[in-house]
Amino acid sequence: MTFFTFLDYSAVLVFALTGSLVASRAQLDIVGFFFFACLTAVGGGTLRDLLLDRHPVFWVENPAYLGVACAAALLVFLTAHLFESRYKLLLWLDAFALAIAVAAGSGVAQTLGHSAPIVVVMGVVTGCMGGLMRDVVSNEVPLVLVKGELYVTCTFAGSVATVIASELELPSTQVALACAAVTFILRAGSLALGWQLPVYKSRPPKV
Amino acid sequence: MTFFTFLDYSAVLVFALTGSLVASRAQLDIVGFFFFACLTAVGGGTLRDLLLDRHPVFWVENPAYLGVACAAALLVFLTAHLFESRYKLLLWLDAFALAIAVAAGSGVAQTLGHSAPIVVVMGVVTGCMGGLMRDVVSNEVPLVLVKGELYVTCTFAGSVATVIASELELPSTQVALACAAVTFILRAGSLALGWQLPVYKSRPPKV
Amino acid sequence: MTFFTFLDYSAVLVFALTGSLVASRAQLDIVGFFFFACLTAVGGGTLRDLLLDRHPVFWVENPAYLGVACAAALLVFLTAHLFESRYKLLLWLDAFALAIAVAAGSGVAQTLGHSAPIVVVMGVVTGCMGGLMRDVVSNEVPLVLVKGELYVTCTFAGSVATVIASELELPSTQVALACAAVTFILRAGSLALGWQLPVYKSRPPKV
Repeated sequence: MTFFTFLDYSAVLVFALTGSLVASRAQLDIVGFFFFACLTAVGGGTLRDLLLDRHPVFWVENPAYLGVACAAALLVFLTAHLFESRYKLLLWLDAFALAIAVAAGSGVAQTLGHSAPIVVVMGVVTGCMGGLMRDVVSNEVPLVLVKGELYVTCTFAGSVATVIASELELPSTQVALACAAVTFILRAGSLALGWQLPVYKSRPPKV
Repeated sequence: MTFFTFLDYSAVLVFALTGSLVASRAQLDIVGFFFFACLTAVGGGTLRDLLLDRHPVFWVENPAYLGVACAAALLVFLTAHLFESRYKLLLWLDAFALAIAVAAGSGVAQTLGHSAPIVVVMGVVTGCMGGLMRDVVSNEVPLVLVKGELYVTCTFAGSVATVIASELELPSTQVALACAAVTFILRAGSLALGWQLPVYKSRPPKV
Repeated sequence: MTFFTFLDYSAVLVFALTGSLVASRAQLDIVGFFFFACLTAVGGGTLRDLLLDRHPVFWVENPAYLGVACAAALLVFLTAHLFESRYKLLLWLDAFALAIAVAAGSGVAQTLGHSAPIVVVMGVVTGCMGGLMRDVVSNEVPLVLVKGELYVTCTFAGSVATVIASELELPSTQVALACAAVTFILRAGSLALGWQLPVYKSRPPKV
């Protein structure tokens, strides 16, 4: 198992947990849990593979990814009632998954020899898009839209860290670590300490 | 015309009817009917083809599928006012389309020699995703989210039936029939008799 | 730079402006502006490229498209407060982008030798889908759903104009011009003068 395979599995596992938590909030049955776990877990990576014409798509080549996602769904189905605030848990797991997925997404693009802008975009896509599909399908407010929080910004900064660390010719595990650390620290700082960038203010005229 | 081509046409036709009914609920013009008919009719199969790198996509190769979808849209545009409860009609047509599409989707993956998990996923994707796109774009509540109903579960069970029937080396028409029957009976039982799986209960904490 | 490359750049620029306006209505930070600008700008063309198996996808081959989109986002971030009615501005820019994108999308499909129905669909997809992704992700009412306005219809008519003008063996710049003119005039007539097609009436039964 290569290092990027390990990253992909980890991101799948943690995103699947967040998808299952959303399924629990929607009070679905176990197959509904499987559905949201898989959608969230493989959504971003699938889009990355389609955009880069990388076939077979990672989970079509190796369906064990889906097994991991379904196992996570089963775990949440059996235990989610133990947690007092499932939404907070969801946010923190999502932050963790985001960090791993950005590292995996930008790392794969880097390995395939793509230019810096494409590496950055693939990091953002792999990080944000699975969670975005989860939120759009389940009618939750997409995390990319939450006011006064860093979200896309974290994946953007993490992907830029990948590019810089690669320029410095660090080994690929350290590149991934740098990327994940930047992504997670920014997101954690936003969730826990309220870090944010200046936002566009002015009352939005709705007509 | 092969058997799977016939299934694809049937699924396209019936899904197009459901897309057109949604367009009628949104009070669109005839081109809006075409749009929703085509989106719903080819959405799931298109995603299947993209994921399996099966080019040209079925309706790009043979645009007659789009003609069928537009004909269905025209039919609904002219006659939908005759039906008292268009939502109930929509639900039952959707159940019928679901059964055919799951059989077509899992059957194609089977024919291409994919492993059992991928066959199951392609059945679910081909069945659910067209209707999901229809519901997300039109702001209807996605059928996959409706509480206390079997929906994804039916497509899942139908796809598993495909896998089992193939293991038993039944001819492909009987495999498809078994799959469609399982999918439709479960969905019909859920709509008419309230069949459901245990769902995740516990009041969802929203903060 | 070929003529279609020029069209693609123009559509990217103007769609990016509309995406940024939506980001301003959602009060996002600058990276949120980048995200919506890029999603809107390349969404339709990306889907066209994936459906036609045209790799590398246009912006993966040439990331300068993303640079243009981000520059547009920065411009809007700095100046949007100067406009009194951002929604009206958004509608008119969207109309302009729509016209260019339909010409680019149907023109590319024509050049690749696809049949008339596929040319029409690719015009509609390239025109509508970027804006549709923008609206679905940002929780705005999708423009394709707005009652009593021509929207999909304009892209449909514009794409048909491409097919007819090509049949007449006009040079490709004139084909594109005809397509863009038809699309824009219909959309402008709908926005300014209330042009519309007969819509499906009858009170929609919601149960």
